[in-house]
Amino acid sequence: MEPELIQHLRNSLASSPRLRIGLGDDAAILHWHDREDLVVTTDLISDEIDFLLAEVDPRRVGRKALAVNLSDLAAMGAEPIAAVVSLLLPKRPPQGTTLELATKLYEGMLPLCEQFDCVVAGGDTNSWSGPLAISVTAFGSCGAAPPLLRSAAKPGDVLLVTGQLGGSIVGHHFDFTPRVNEARKLAVEGLAHAAMDISDGLLLDLSRMLKESAVSAVVDLPAVPVSPAAAKLAESSGKTPLQHALSDGEDFELLFTASPEAAAKLASEGLLGTSVTVIGTLVAGEGIWADHVGGKRLEPQGFLHQ
Amino acid sequence: MEPELIQHLRNSLASSPRLRIGLGDDAAILHWHDREDLVVTTDLISDEIDFLLAEVDPRRVGRKALAVNLSDLAAMGAEPIAAVVSLLLPKRPPQGTTLELATKLYEGMLPLCEQFDCVVAGGDTNSWSGPLAISVTAFGSCGAAPPLLRSAAKPGDVLLVTGQLGGSIVGHHFDFTPRVNEARKLAVEGLAHAAMDISDGLLLDLSRMLKESAVSAVVDLPAVPVSPAAAKLAESSGKTPLQHALSDGEDFELLFTASPEAAAKLASEGLLGTSVTVIGTLVAGEGIWADHVGGKRLEPQGFLHQ
Repeated sequence: MEPELIQHLRNSLASSPRLRIGLGDDAAILHWHDREDLVVTTDLISDEIDFLLAEVDPRRVGRKALAVNLSDLAAMGAEPIAAVVSLLLPKRPPQGTTLELATKLYEGMLPLCEQFDCVVAGGDTNSWSGPLAISVTAFGSCGAAPPLLRSAAKPGDVLLVTGQLGGSIVGHHFDFTPRVNEARKLAVEGLAHAAMDISDGLLLDLSRMLKESAVSAVVDLPAVPVSPAAAKLAESSGKTPLQHALSDGEDFELLFTASPEAAAKLASEGLLGTSVTVIGTLVAGEGIWADHVGGKRLEPQGFLHQ
Repeated sequence: MEPELIQHLRNSLASSPRLRIGLGDDAAILHWHDREDLVVTTDLISDEIDFLLAEVDPRRVGRKALAVNLSDLAAMGAEPIAAVVSLLLPKRPPQGTTLELATKLYEGMLPLCEQFDCVVAGGDTNSWSGPLAISVTAFGSCGAAPPLLRSAAKPGDVLLVTGQLGGSIVGHHFDFTPRVNEARKLAVEGLAHAAMDISDGLLLDLSRMLKESAVSAVVDLPAVPVSPAAAKLAESSGKTPLQHALSDGEDFELLFTASPEAAAKLASEGLLGTSVTVIGTLVAGEGIWADHVGGKRLEPQGFLHQ
C-alpha cells in the first residue's frame, strides 16, 4: 500500500480498541467482545503485474494468490483457519473458457489449503472485459502464543532469514512454500522477537521492520544466503548475485529477530526443518549498515553506495 | 458466482467441520476450536459493471463497495465487526490522481463504518493499467442469536420484504442503507425464519431461497412494494413498474419469512423502523406462483408468462 495512503488511514482509523494490531504490520489483529484474537490479511494479485496469464498454468496463479496470504499469516506467527476468494475473470482468457479458468485457479489453491488446514469459506466470482485479478482474504489465529510483530525487534537481537534470497522471478514466486510451520514453531516456542515476510526485497522490508521497532541493523553482507536463481539472473542482469538477494521482491521467506542464544540454536540445530541463516545484529539507532565495508549505510532500495 | 463453479466447489469443500454454513448462503459461518462463530462475506465491484467511474463521485463507489458487504452480513442477521479492502486502482483515473482516487474511495467508506460500528482492519492497494475494482471482505457475528439462513423457510411462513423494490439503477444502488439494524432485530428477537438480501432481483433471489429451503411460494403480486424509481423507469423501458420491482437487481432490501403472528406484528407495528410488506406465503412444493392470475407460475428471471 502506498505510504501516503497508509498514513491517511492510520490517522483516520487508529483509535478503535477492536483493532489490536492494524496497518503497518503484515496482517491485522482483531479483538472484539470476549473472543480471542483473529488475524486477518488480504492480498490481491493481477495479470501483467504479479504473473503473465498467457504464459503460465492458471493453477500456479491460483496457488500463488493463496500462498502470498498464507505467508502474511506466517509473518504474524498465526496458523491459517480459512480464506475467501474474489475473482475478476476475463471474458476471453488466453486459453479455455472463463469457467475453466476459474476451476483451474481453485484447483491450484486446494492442495495448499489441505497442506495448511485452511478452508475456502466462500468467494465472489465476476467476469469482465479486463484482465484477471484475484483477491484473497485469509484468517488465522495465534492461539495462546503471542503474535510475531514487526515492532518487537530490540538492540542486541540477532537478525535471521529462512531459505535463500533473490531471483524469485525465475519461478520461486509461484512455487514457494509459505513459512507457516516455521513461524508457528517460532511463535509457540517463543524463539523469535520480531518477524515479517520478505515480499518487497530484503533491504526494503528490513527497513520497515527497523522503522516499526525504532532500531538499526548491521547486516553481514557476505552471510546473506543467495539463491542459485539470483546467481543465474546475475549472468545477464548487470547486477551481482548479492544485489539480487538484497533487493529482489517476492522471496516470501521469514525475516526475524531472536536473542543470541535462540539464534545460535536455530542456525545450528535445524529446529525449523528449513535452513536458517544469521545475517546481522540489531543496534540502537536508525538505518541499515554494512559492517564489511567499514560501516557504510545501505539504502533500503538495495543499492550499496560504495 | 456461477452455478457450475458453486457446485464444483461444494463438491470439493463440503466436508470441513469448520465451515458451519458455506457456499449457497449470503455469507459463510466459520467455527473453529472453541471460538464462537464468525460470519464472513466477500464481494467485489468493478468499473463498467457495478458503476461508471467516469460519471460518479468515487466516494459513492467506495460506500457501495462496503455497503454490499454489510448487506450480506445483514442477510445472516449478523452485526458487523470489521472489513478489509483490496483496491485495484487505474494508473490514469478519469479525474485526479490514483492516490486521490484511493483517498476518496476510503472517504466514502468511513462514514458507513462509523454508522455500523465496523472497523477497516487493513487492505491491499495496487495500481495497474486496467479499470478500478474494489474487493471488500467483511466479518460479523450473530452473537447469541442464531443466524438467519436461506434454508430455514417453512410451509405456512409468510413472505416479507423491507422497503420498496425496483429501479435501483436510478441511484438507490449507491445510496441504500444496508438493513443491518432491521436484520439484527429480527435475529435477536427471533422474529424471522429464513432471510437473504435482494441483490439480483426479487424473483431470482426468492427462487434461490426456495431451493435452499425446498419449499414453494405464492406471491401476491399486487402487494409487492414498487419504488417510485421503478415507476419512473417504466415510462420509457417498455416494462411495467411491477416488472421492474420483480426483476431489477441491487435493491439490497431484506427478503425474509416469518410466522403469520410475527408477520402481522412486523407489518403493522413498525417494529423494524423501516417499512415491511407482506408479499406472499410459503407452501409445500416447488416454484414461485402468482395467486392473482389463477396460479400461474412465475419464472425466476422476473418475466410473468401470462
